[in-house]
Amino acid sequence: MGFVTIRDVAQKAGVSIATVSQILHGKGRFSKKTKKLVMNTVDALGYIPDSRAQAIRMSDSKMVGLLVPDLRNRYFADLVSSMENILYEEGFNTLIGTSAENVERQDSFITNILGQRFDGLIIIPQGVESAGLKALVKRNIPTVFVDRRVPGMDTIPYVVSDPRPGLVEAMRALYADGHRKIAYLAHPSLKSFSLNERAEAFKKLSPQFFGKSGSLILSSDGKSGSLEMGLNRIEEFGATALIFGYSPDAISCLGIFHDRGIKIGPCMSLISFDDIDVFNLMTPKISIISQQAEKMGRRGVEMLLEMIRNGVSGLGAMMSIPTIFIHRESVGPAPASGSHH
Amino acid sequence: MGFVTIRDVAQKAGVSIATVSQILHGKGRFSKKTKKLVMNTVDALGYIPDSRAQAIRMSDSKMVGLLVPDLRNRYFADLVSSMENILYEEGFNTLIGTSAENVERQDSFITNILGQRFDGLIIIPQGVESAGLKALVKRNIPTVFVDRRVPGMDTIPYVVSDPRPGLVEAMRALYADGHRKIAYLAHPSLKSFSLNERAEAFKKLSPQFFGKSGSLILSSDGKSGSLEMGLNRIEEFGATALIFGYSPDAISCLGIFHDRGIKIGPCMSLISFDDIDVFNLMTPKISIISQQAEKMGRRGVEMLLEMIRNGVSGLGAMMSIPTIFIHRESVGPAPASGSHH
Repeated sequence: MGFVTIRDVAQKAGVSIATVSQILHGKGRFSKKTKKLVMNTVDALGYIPDSRAQAIRMSDSKMVGLLVPDLRNRYFADLVSSMENILYEEGFNTLIGTSAENVERQDSFITNILGQRFDGLIIIPQGVESAGLKALVKRNIPTVFVDRRVPGMDTIPYVVSDPRPGLVEAMRALYADGHRKIAYLAHPSLKSFSLNERAEAFKKLSPQFFGKSGSLILSSDGKSGSLEMGLNRIEEFGATALIFGYSPDAISCLGIFHDRGIKIGPCMSLISFDDIDVFNLMTPKISIISQQAEKMGRRGVEMLLEMIRNGVSGLGAMMSIPTIFIHRESVGPAPASGSHH
Repeated sequence: MGFVTIRDVAQKAGVSIATVSQILHGKGRFSKKTKKLVMNTVDALGYIPDSRAQAIRMSDSKMVGLLVPDLRNRYFADLVSSMENILYEEGFNTLIGTSAENVERQDSFITNILGQRFDGLIIIPQGVESAGLKALVKRNIPTVFVDRRVPGMDTIPYVVSDPRPGLVEAMRALYADGHRKIAYLAHPSLKSFSLNERAEAFKKLSPQFFGKSGSLILSSDGKSGSLEMGLNRIEEFGATALIFGYSPDAISCLGIFHDRGIKIGPCMSLISFDDIDVFNLMTPKISIISQQAEKMGRRGVEMLLEMIRNGVSGLGAMMSIPTIFIHRESVGPAPASGSHH
């Protein structure tokens, strides 16, 4: 019922589409009764003749679609809100869809978008070349990837963050605080290019500070069983500091550390990616590696608006925003070996 | 460029719309050169002739719009995610817009929605009868209000929470713990019917437990100056317990209490509306009055789907979900009078 067509009016009134059309245009010869029936049906259904409907659609066409993996992740909520605000200032409305970190749902959103009138799309994509993403390229809809990119889809411009500067600063701070064995918790099951890139960067950079025997990378799917196992292995390894690539994992692990009586800061130093307010409200406050989400969102919007205004759908441009390390109470001096209980 | 029309093709190729139409339908007599030019332009722009475009739009029309005040408020993010999941299971895609707690932005979203093809809308509305909401009623688009309602717009069905059961349980627990003076922090500037209803419920119910001289209601706009002043007045009043109607205010005040050295639990008991995960992750864990958001969202979706399936746009139905009190560490025995520093 959302959009009433001439067909709906004809069906409801029990006449042909041609009859409705002719009566609406004041053409043809019909009984008063038929005319009245059709006009009443038009009113009752709220039908708007096509020309006017089209005019309404056209005047309202400044619309950008935004696809995001999960709005309950505060990092994405912040990124989305900042992009929405900039777009609103520039005269664009935003409609948001979520993929729930799922390729099928992402492609279902895209298929729907293709049937609506959007000027452009900003997507935080799943990391694989999907049918939906390919359809976007074919249809020449201006599209920008933000926060993550998709290997192989290089005609779509993207703005991502560079995990290395923040990671290097974080490791430098840990080393200066006496830490010699550190661990990294990755989350490869999401198949996110950015998450994988962070883990790769840790793998490459960490031995420069801590040697190969001082660095441990573990993987988790975020479920409590896998996180508990990960923390066991970190304890066995003797790490005194832990970096999380995916902030929801850090939040879950804080509860586990609390239950195990391991004090964050004195017993275990902790750093997470993502500048979200919870980390700044907790006791102790959690040190972070920030992607500067607002800056990244602003650049993404600027790229998209340029494409829309110039009528270009693919630039193949890319931009990388450096991460920064923010030192807070969760990072402290390394405890004496073996004493972190 | 999001939606290519026959006009775009004609313009690009430098021919008339009629020429493009005839060539696409294999009619008329045109030179090979013109035919090739038009067909190449159709390909280059990715134009899809109207009949096919319409077929695509029709097959993709199972779409629900969701309007929410602020996605950075975890309570709304949770409510939206649960509704989205149910809709997806039922075969509907969801597009989300935000109002930023602003009537103008809400109405801008609605105006845009009217130009797109939506089967129905779920709205967490601003509390006033706006032009946008009135347009929705006129256009017969199936609409449900969730979490908040709009006085005067009673043809739109709504699902809200009843603040009283949870509030009564919370006050009963505070009384049992020896509290005799309590305060409530309201947030009237948002003009939210639900927030105002909570404050009204406190005003009515609190004297039954604590007498008129034992109950204080304060208002804040959420900015730190107004929160600091509110907490000063609460201290002067001598309240040993504080209830927040709006969870973002509770989160902001936790920082202020921390800075002032007032310990939550032993010095000041604290309860907030909204069942969000942060409250369960903090030390101490914060007691809450839960609206049972998932239940509320599920009922809202069910109402909307019923309206869409039956082709009805307004039922005037209403449903009220009781709030529940969840007792956690932030509520403790009342400290001896005047000793809460």
